[in-house]
Amino acid sequence: MTFAVPAIAPTANATLDAALQHALDNKTKPRGSLGKIESTAKRIGLILNSTTPQLRDPQQLVFAGDHGITAHGVSAFPSEVTWQMVANFLGGGAAISVLSKLHGIALSVVDCGVNFDFTPDFGNHPQLIDCKVAMGAADSLTQAAMTHKQCETALNNGMDLVKKLPGNVLLLGEMGIGNTSAAALLFARLLDMDIAACTGAGTGLDNAGVQRKTDVLRRVLERHADATTPLDALAALGGLEIATMTGAVLQAAAERRVVLVDGFITSSAVLVASKLCPAVLDYCVFSHLSHEQGHRAMLDALRADPLLQLDLRLGEGSGAALAWPLLQAACAILNDMASFDDVGVARDTA
Amino acid sequence: MTFAVPAIAPTANATLDAALQHALDNKTKPRGSLGKIESTAKRIGLILNSTTPQLRDPQQLVFAGDHGITAHGVSAFPSEVTWQMVANFLGGGAAISVLSKLHGIALSVVDCGVNFDFTPDFGNHPQLIDCKVAMGAADSLTQAAMTHKQCETALNNGMDLVKKLPGNVLLLGEMGIGNTSAAALLFARLLDMDIAACTGAGTGLDNAGVQRKTDVLRRVLERHADATTPLDALAALGGLEIATMTGAVLQAAAERRVVLVDGFITSSAVLVASKLCPAVLDYCVFSHLSHEQGHRAMLDALRADPLLQLDLRLGEGSGAALAWPLLQAACAILNDMASFDDVGVARDTA
Repeated sequence: MTFAVPAIAPTANATLDAALQHALDNKTKPRGSLGKIESTAKRIGLILNSTTPQLRDPQQLVFAGDHGITAHGVSAFPSEVTWQMVANFLGGGAAISVLSKLHGIALSVVDCGVNFDFTPDFGNHPQLIDCKVAMGAADSLTQAAMTHKQCETALNNGMDLVKKLPGNVLLLGEMGIGNTSAAALLFARLLDMDIAACTGAGTGLDNAGVQRKTDVLRRVLERHADATTPLDALAALGGLEIATMTGAVLQAAAERRVVLVDGFITSSAVLVASKLCPAVLDYCVFSHLSHEQGHRAMLDALRADPLLQLDLRLGEGSGAALAWPLLQAACAILNDMASFDDVGVARDTA
Repeated sequence: MTFAVPAIAPTANATLDAALQHALDNKTKPRGSLGKIESTAKRIGLILNSTTPQLRDPQQLVFAGDHGITAHGVSAFPSEVTWQMVANFLGGGAAISVLSKLHGIALSVVDCGVNFDFTPDFGNHPQLIDCKVAMGAADSLTQAAMTHKQCETALNNGMDLVKKLPGNVLLLGEMGIGNTSAAALLFARLLDMDIAACTGAGTGLDNAGVQRKTDVLRRVLERHADATTPLDALAALGGLEIATMTGAVLQAAAERRVVLVDGFITSSAVLVASKLCPAVLDYCVFSHLSHEQGHRAMLDALRADPLLQLDLRLGEGSGAALAWPLLQAACAILNDMASFDDVGVARDTA
C-alpha cells in the first residue's frame, strides 16, 4: 500500500513547557490544585504553541461505516441502525446532535462506507460529508475488510477532509454497527494482546454474546495472521470509518490541531495513527474512559490519562462533546485567571 | 441551640421514576449507554418533579470565613489569604470567577465570617453578600469554634439567603484558610471515623505538616468530646462558612432546588445537613471526588457517586462549576433527544 504519512512535529519544547508551567504556578491558587485541568491546559498550550492558547471553531466529525463482520452476530443491533442513526444525527435527534448543539460545536457526519444511499433524502444536507469508498467493509472472517486500494482511499479522504476544516480542534466520533469488533481486532494485533482482553459488550451484548464475538474475532485474527504492519492490519481488520478517521487524525496533528479523542473505537484509529507516527499522541486529549472492556488497557498502552469516567458506551463522539467544556475551562484558567503578581494574594508558606 | 430544620420532602416517586426511566430507555441510544449522565438526568428529574426538567439561573455561592485553628499551623497558607481571595473573587481573577463566567453561572461571595472589613473597598459590590456573624470562628483547640448563638445565626443566614435567590440550582463553594481542618473534624465526629483517615494536605501541606495537623485535630476532638449531636458538633468544630452553608443546603432542599456539591468542605456541610434531615441527600448532585484525603470515605458514607475525578484540591466551588455542563447535558438528553418512537431507528435485538 502506498500511503505517505504527513510530517508531524513532536510538541516537546522545553522553553514553552517552562513558560506554561510558570504561568500555571503563578495563578492565584495553590500549585497544581486544578489537577487534570492544569495538565490539559499545558497540553493545549504545547499543541497550539502558545502560553495563551485560544480554541477556535471546534469541529465534531462522526465517521460512519458498516461492517461485514456483523453477519456473524457480533452486535446487539442490526446493521441498518448505522444509516438510521446517520439520519438521526442529521435530523438533530441523536445524543451527539444534542450535545454538540448545547456546547456550540459544529457537527458533521462523514459517510465513509455506510450501506445506504443518502442521496435521495440527504444529498444536499449541509452536515453530511460524502467520503463513501464502498457500501461497507467486507466480512473480515472471509477476506480483508478493505482492499489496500480502498484503505488508501479512505486514509487520503480523511486527510483531505481535515485540510478543509476551519478551527483548530477536531473532536472524534464514529458510528458503525460492528465497529467495536474492528477496534478490538486492531487493538489485539497492534498491541499484541489476547483478543479476549480486548472484546467487550459493545452496544449491549450479554455474556454469551461477548463469548461468541470473542470466538469470531479470534478466527478473524488467525485468518489474517500475516497482517502485522499498521497499514496491513488496518486494511485486513479495520473498517472504512476507522481508516478515514486515521487519516484525519494524522492530518490534524500535522496541522497542530487539538484532537479530542472519544472512546474505544476512536482510540483504535489513534492507535493506528500512532503506530504510523508516534508524535501523533502529542496532539491528542483523551476525553474519557469508557465502559467498554479493553479501553483501559488501550489507553494505558497509549499512555493516555482520560478526563472523564462516566461509564459511557455510546460512541458518536458523545464523550468528546461532554469533555469539551473542560478544554474550554483549561484555556480560560490560563488566559483569564489573575496571577500572584497581578493581585495582592499571599503565596503558600511551604 | 434552637434551630428549626425546614420540612424537606424525599424525592422518591415511583410513578415519576418509572416515567423518567422509560423516557431515557426510549431515547435513540442503547439503554444506559450514557452512564452517569443518565443517572444524573433522573436525579434532576426527581428533584424538579418533571420528566422534562429545566435548569434555570444557576447560582454559585462561595461561603467565606476564617478559622482560629490556623494559629496552630494547620494550613500551608496564612489566614490573610481568605480575605485576599474574596477580593480576587470579586475582582474576577480567581478560578471560580473565570469558570462561572465561562459557563454563565451567577457568582456571589458570602462573607460569613472573614477577618476583614470589606466595607471601604467592596461595600457596594453587587457580588458580595454580607452575612458576617463574627471576624472568624474561634480557635476550637481552646473553645467552641462558634457559640450556639453564632451557629444558629449562621444557619438562619444561610436559609434566608437562599430564599432570596432566583433559579433552581445552587452550586456550593467555599473559601476559608483552615477549613479542611473544620471539615475533617466534623467528618470524624459525625461518622465516627479516626481523624487520621479524615485529615489531608489541604491546599498543600507536606507529610510533616499533615502529621502536625492530625495531632492538633485529635486534641480538638478530645477537647470537645461532649459535642456529639450534629448541631453541637457544628458549633464546636465547624466554622461560620460551614454553618451558613448548612443552612443554605437545608433551605435549597426544602425548595426543591438542585444542590451541586463541590469538594471536601462543602461535603461536610452536606453531611451536617443530612444528619439533621437525611432527605437532603435526595437534592444533592456530587460534582467531583477531590484529591483531599478522606473525601472518598465521606462520599461513600453519603452514598454519593461523584461525576468528576480530576484530582482537584482547590475548593471555591471550582469542581461544581466544572461539573455544571454535565448537568446541562443530562437535561438536554432528556429534553431534546429523539425517541425510538419519534424516528425510524431499530432497537437492539437483545
